[in-house]
This record gives sequence, structure tokens and C-alpha cells, in this order.
Amino acid sequence: MSYLDRIRICHQWRPERYRPFLLEGDTQPLGWVGHDFAARLKDFPSAFTVTEAAVLLPARYGDFESRSAVLEEALRELHAAGEIPKWRGEDYGIGRRWGAPPLFRMERGAVPLFGVLAYGVHVNGYVMGDDGPRLWVGKRAAHKAVAPGKLDHLVAGGQPLGLSLMENVVKEAQEEASVPADLARLARPVGALRYLCEREEGLRNDVVFCFDLELPGDFQPTPNDDEVESFALWSMDQVLERIRESDDFKFNVALVNLHFALRHGMLNPDREPAYQAIVEGLQGRFED
Amino acid sequence: MSYLDRIRICHQWRPERYRPFLLEGDTQPLGWVGHDFAARLKDFPSAFTVTEAAVLLPARYGDFESRSAVLEEALRELHAAGEIPKWRGEDYGIGRRWGAPPLFRMERGAVPLFGVLAYGVHVNGYVMGDDGPRLWVGKRAAHKAVAPGKLDHLVAGGQPLGLSLMENVVKEAQEEASVPADLARLARPVGALRYLCEREEGLRNDVVFCFDLELPGDFQPTPNDDEVESFALWSMDQVLERIRESDDFKFNVALVNLHFALRHGMLNPDREPAYQAIVEGLQGRFED
Repeated sequence: MSYLDRIRICHQWRPERYRPFLLEGDTQPLGWVGHDFAARLKDFPSAFTVTEAAVLLPARYGDFESRSAVLEEALRELHAAGEIPKWRGEDYGIGRRWGAPPLFRMERGAVPLFGVLAYGVHVNGYVMGDDGPRLWVGKRAAHKAVAPGKLDHLVAGGQPLGLSLMENVVKEAQEEASVPADLARLARPVGALRYLCEREEGLRNDVVFCFDLELPGDFQPTPNDDEVESFALWSMDQVLERIRESDDFKFNVALVNLHFALRHGMLNPDREPAYQAIVEGLQGRFED
Repeated sequence: MSYLDRIRICHQWRPERYRPFLLEGDTQPLGWVGHDFAARLKDFPSAFTVTEAAVLLPARYGDFESRSAVLEEALRELHAAGEIPKWRGEDYGIGRRWGAPPLFRMERGAVPLFGVLAYGVHVNGYVMGDDGPRLWVGKRAAHKAVAPGKLDHLVAGGQPLGLSLMENVVKEAQEEASVPADLARLARPVGALRYLCEREEGLRNDVVFCFDLELPGDFQPTPNDDEVESFALWSMDQVLERIRESDDFKFNVALVNLHFALRHGMLNPDREPAYQAIVEGLQGRFED
């Protein structure tokens, strides 16, 4: 595999398998529903208008609360029927893009089944040395709902409704790696990555906000919940080699790690013929 | 103006005014030629096959040298006839993308008339303080061929054929700001930006490689040629305010400065509703 293959995986989906999910009377899709799941949604005519061309949220639900309520009722029934296997008990706010008000809330476990835009925070925890940054790498617990056993960031998490990104960073940093709040708040926002890809859990249509958190050399992160098994400090050469030679890093973590490597001068455009293609691929643009 | 307006300007062109420029027998455009200039190229049938649909470089020129030679002859005549007003005496290598071998060389002054892909290096020279980075800002000389009097980077320049990017950084740093080679070599590659826009000189179809160069607080850059009039150290707040409220920064310098601000945590996604739009706009993607 090349870096570019790894990036490409995060942007692979088969549009012909999906139909748009949108508000009735609107033209901009909020997400994409697989045809099989769309057929199942026909059983909930109060919540969804399902046609060959689209899944619509009926116009009679005209505000955040009414849309959220009818959706929740249908999704709970679908979960009970085994159609939404992983119920997370956490609400995402669903909207058109960052900065626009959310149109409704949706149980996190259902989000990939509707392919709606979801947000996350990914924190690159690193220690600066003479030879550049070294990155804290976590190993996800074997029982995790998504990507069990994969390599992960120091801190990463989905963005629930009602928290700011920084509040989420501080919360996740405490929960996942026992990072004190005062330290976590030093995380600097350094950009965002968007991708749309098919995964086991459905269609991941995500924007991940990337943060860099420089840590003192004597700080030792410790798993504080059962999400992560262990942490280790890796050289960027190790990180990059593992990304090239395996899919041990969770798919989107590899993406954020490449973004980190790029921003910290670990990829050299004079020596990496694919440099421009990597930069554009990280934003979902591929020329061949 | 907003940041997003400033970014959008770097991606504005009217495709209907241009036809593709490509190798005969090929399908991927190398550039875009304005219809008026295309009509003028009909006078050079040995160098160009001009149709309603495209400007072609004839297949009989099958290698770098033969393509370059016939182009140079035609371009010199066009320059003598006043059609290429600014002859720079510097060759660019023209290819499909970074890392692919150049297909021919072309006089820099002709590049925007053919809308072919050009490369440049932009160096953010900064001094790190307690309140974040401060940026060295240059003021371009009033007589410059492009963007006279505009605000600029510490160091920036087009990428001539035959130099590595780092060799170009070192050369330009010496020429434009008297930065010693040992110091200039500490510049770290931190990404690239691509844009395609109409400017006075023609169609700018550029990839600019961005570098960060942290400078000691006591280093004073000095203009060493007649390209830059003076340098001053600006706070990022000053830089960002000037970008929002004027077009004093050269169009692509504003873009690279926003990329710098983004990577250094000077834009906050919790406070900037357009954060996602800015990130995507910097890569040329706009949703509305």
C-alpha cells in the first residue's frame, strides 16, 4: 500500500447503492441511505416518505424538536427489530455543515445508516524531541463497537450534540487517557478533514477536527475507561511505516496521522513524487 | 469581505472563455487558452493545431526537447509582436502534476496565457512569542511585474525548471530577504495549496508549496534585490484583520497566510462558523 491508497480507502463508496436522504421540499441531500435500509424504512410512514429516488423527512415536521421526536420513535423500533445493532445512547446534531444550526438530533448508532454528516475531534498528542515530534499511539480495546484492536490517537471521539469541540476534547482526554483538563485545553485546532466511505457500520460521512497537543516529556497517558488498552510513544518514522505497510491504524486515524506528518514537515515534496496527490487526496480529490 | 470571499477570489474563472490546451492524441488538458489568444496562435501552425474545441501541441513533437524548441520559437515571435508583454527569461517545466516528468519547458511570462500548471514556493517566516507566532510581512516593490506594492511573504517565488524546491527556497531567501542559506534550509514543508483563477496576467493554475521557517527573534530580514521594499513583523491578529478588510495582501499570499493561521491554531472552529467552509475553500471546494 502507498499513502495514497490509504487515503483513497477513506473516500470509497458506491453511490449506486444509495439514495439521498433529505428534508421534503429541499434539494440538498443531508445523507445517503442504502437501498435495503430504505425499503425497511417504508414500514415507518409517519417518519419517512420513501420513494425510488429518495428518503424524505416529511415537511409536516417543521422544527428541530418535532423532527427529532418522530425520528427517535422510529429508530427505537428499528433498534428493537435488530436493524440498528449498535445503540450508543448518544445524540448527534444533524445539519448541512459546520456552523449551520442542526436540523434534528439522531442517535449516534443510526448515523452511518443515514450517511448524514457527523463531526469528531482527533487529538494528536505528541512530544517534541531534537529529531521532531514523537506521537502517542493508543491501542483500542478488543471489545470496542467500531474498529476493535486498531491503533488510535491519544484522544479521539465523536462530537455529541450540546458540547463545544473543546469541551469534547477535554472530556475525551480525561476519559480516554487521563489527561488533566488544564493540559487538554492547550490542544490547538489545526484544521479539519472530510471523508465519505463505506465501512462495516454503514456510510461514514465525517468531518474530523484535528488538534495538536504538545505534551511534556514526562507525561504518561493512562487509559481511564475501557476504550483504550495501552499507550506508547512512537517515532513518526514508525507511524508512517506502519501506515504504509498495514491497516493497523484505524482508517481515519491513518488519515489524521498523514495530515500531522504533512503539517510537521515529515513529508518532503522534493523526495515524495506523490506529495501533491497526497495533499489533494487528504481533501478527497483524486485525479486518476 | 470575509476570509471565504478572499479564498473564493483565488478560485474564480469563467471556463466558457477558454478552450483546453493539450498534447495531440491526449485527453487530459494541460492548461486553458483564452479564445482570443487561441485565434492568435493560428498564425503558428508549425507549433499549434488550433480548432474550435482545443489548442493542440502536434503529436509530431514527441519528446521534451522538440516540444520545447518549437514552443520557444513561436513564443519569441509572439513576444516580439507584443502578445506576451512580460518576458521573464526563466523557464518553467510543464507537466501533468507534481512528480510526473515535465513534458516541455515554457517561458514563465507565457505560462498564464496557456493556463498550464505552475509551481511556487511560499515561505512563512515567523518568530515564536508567548502569544503565538508573529509573521514577517514584505511589501513588494512598486515596479514589480506582478502585484506591485502588495503585501507578501518573507520569501516566495515561482519554481523554475532544474531546481529542487529547497534549492529554490534557499536561492529566493538569499535574493529577497538576505536570509543565510543555513537558516533558510531550516524551512519545513507544511503542505501545498492549489488554485485556478483569472488575473491580469492570464489564468493562474498554480500549486504553491508552503514552508514554515521559524526565525530567531533577533534576525532582521533585509531586501537584497529590488523585489521587496521593506519587511515588518506583524501579529497574526494584524495579518488576519488586514486580510478581512482589504486586498492589500497579494491574492495567493492571503491564501497561504490563512493556511498558516489555520495550522497554527489562530482560527477556532468553536468560534468560527465558517471553519469547515474555510478549510474546504482552501482546497478549492465550495458548496454554495
